[in-house]
Amino acid sequence: MSEADGPLTGPVEIIGAGLVGTSIGLALGRAGIEVLLSDASADHLRTASGLGAGRPVTPDDRPQLVVVAVPPDHLGAVIASALRTSDAVVTDVGSVKSGPLAAVAGAPGVGRYVGGHPMAGSERSGPLAASAALFDGRPWAVTPHDTSDPRAVALVEALARVCGGVPVRLTPLEHDRAVARTSHLPHLLAALVAGRLADAPADHLALSGQGVRDVTRVAAGDPALYGQIVSANSEAVLALLTEVRERLDAMISAVGAADRDALEGVLREGVAGTAAIPGKHGGPTRPMRSVFVSVPDHPGELARLFADAGASEVNIEDVHIDHDPGRPVGLVELLVEEGRAEHLLASLESRGWVTHR
Amino acid sequence: MSEADGPLTGPVEIIGAGLVGTSIGLALGRAGIEVLLSDASADHLRTASGLGAGRPVTPDDRPQLVVVAVPPDHLGAVIASALRTSDAVVTDVGSVKSGPLAAVAGAPGVGRYVGGHPMAGSERSGPLAASAALFDGRPWAVTPHDTSDPRAVALVEALARVCGGVPVRLTPLEHDRAVARTSHLPHLLAALVAGRLADAPADHLALSGQGVRDVTRVAAGDPALYGQIVSANSEAVLALLTEVRERLDAMISAVGAADRDALEGVLREGVAGTAAIPGKHGGPTRPMRSVFVSVPDHPGELARLFADAGASEVNIEDVHIDHDPGRPVGLVELLVEEGRAEHLLASLESRGWVTHR
Repeated sequence: MSEADGPLTGPVEIIGAGLVGTSIGLALGRAGIEVLLSDASADHLRTASGLGAGRPVTPDDRPQLVVVAVPPDHLGAVIASALRTSDAVVTDVGSVKSGPLAAVAGAPGVGRYVGGHPMAGSERSGPLAASAALFDGRPWAVTPHDTSDPRAVALVEALARVCGGVPVRLTPLEHDRAVARTSHLPHLLAALVAGRLADAPADHLALSGQGVRDVTRVAAGDPALYGQIVSANSEAVLALLTEVRERLDAMISAVGAADRDALEGVLREGVAGTAAIPGKHGGPTRPMRSVFVSVPDHPGELARLFADAGASEVNIEDVHIDHDPGRPVGLVELLVEEGRAEHLLASLESRGWVTHR
Repeated sequence: MSEADGPLTGPVEIIGAGLVGTSIGLALGRAGIEVLLSDASADHLRTASGLGAGRPVTPDDRPQLVVVAVPPDHLGAVIASALRTSDAVVTDVGSVKSGPLAAVAGAPGVGRYVGGHPMAGSERSGPLAASAALFDGRPWAVTPHDTSDPRAVALVEALARVCGGVPVRLTPLEHDRAVARTSHLPHLLAALVAGRLADAPADHLALSGQGVRDVTRVAAGDPALYGQIVSANSEAVLALLTEVRERLDAMISAVGAADRDALEGVLREGVAGTAAIPGKHGGPTRPMRSVFVSVPDHPGELARLFADAGASEVNIEDVHIDHDPGRPVGLVELLVEEGRAEHLLASLESRGWVTHR
């Protein structure tokens, strides 16, 4: 995963040293590929270089691949400029793919452009939040257009793999419809839920549990950035928002008329949707079981728990630590394959842990 | 936390041995208090008894406190019956408080009724999902009415504490408005988001990241149960759904008209809402920082990581393990107090871990 991939030998120029651009630089550096950086902000450029994401680009550099990682509003212009001023393959990491393509359609050299979009990010932004591991195991959409050079497509897929990602090939239009559904709509509705909390009385918010925290987490993201992303994908987003308004109206009617069947119908659609999301490792979801353990909330206790769990030779697929207000003892949930849960419970209990069956 | 609380000596009768009723039985048993169980389902009753949550109630039992933990539709009738057939204090654990109270208002002995609602649950249900630790550190709403006997209120608050919860006193009406906002609305909108995934093409869903998983998790809950809960709180829920429809219309107009300022305005409301949710330990949110570490996805590695983190004497507030498709190496995010992050990073690096700054 961390080695150079066939066609990708570098150097790679990265335009835009924010969270994603800097993370790509770190990942390429990890694979031994030379990285050339630029950014409109001298601060960002200095920080990214300082983190080891690459060195500032110079006029004499001849990159093999240019990665455009600028804010959505500027993608089209910067991709066009990169095609014009070099003979390198050009890709980008924008969250929306139709718009940037339209900006360069028919331009000389457009065959060298292949869109990309790593499905990784953070509520944080900027080079300081970057990580070489940001893309490990993540889907990385690669979106060739009708006239993309197959060698350019191969190079961009190599970039995704060298960075640890899993290339997923889609047309630009399919990509935009997909992220409207799996990313932009969830973000917008999370913002609507979170917006209702802003002016709530403190004693009402004291009843907040894990559910509302999970639903609203993404809504903490930068409004200016998400405003750009949503605006760039307005057609697909509008179609979904309109669908949501219809279902919301049905929900309001059902609640107002005490029509329990209709309400349950909307809720059942939700259950079906949660089951449709693919599981870890992309394969069919393996049956999992949660193992709950009480852990005192001070240093070393989690360490002891994981050491003991590790000694039982059970692979822990996920961990959740409750962080509701006022908890003196943490409840740790370990998600393991169903067939291994009893063994883990017995093993932890034999080591003195308080488990909850 | 696990010891008997002043006024609460037992026995406690629990009517309804589902997830919450059985968990209360286990928590009381942990504190040495005698528990008497009943359930309309002989299977549930046998399972709960077998788990150690209490013994089946008999006609000669004289409980000090009756806890009604039946589905929302049956709360009023069962509370009324409990008041009529015993002289015990009666509480319930229903998700909505005005309806059950209305069902017993003016009835003889209503002064012995004090509503309750532990803010804990699960996407799972039934006694097998129960845990004595379900309520540890969780808010537990206690909702006296105008004629509640103060000694009954004290007894119900003692129940909350013995079960590990943190009593939060609210009027029934305030409670219902609070949970409409912090629980019912998030659930309903999560279902609307998830509902849009049900028929999506698989290659679109392949782009699902952590965001959509978090937003939709609660929507996996039982539609019949949530249908009952929402119906029982229809007035408060309708008021919020109507607010959401107004903001959704504003969002649709903003996206349709490419009015970036209006769109960012709605997103900014969301950011403010996420900041309003109280932090761990109920106090103001302490500044936290994430430390990222690469961990091979096989047994023992997490153990080794936590042992090493524990050796650095830094308290880990939360852990997140990425579970996106196809990841060969896990990225583990450790959330720690900001001032301790550098120490933890240095400590882990000195032990050979690959961290990401």
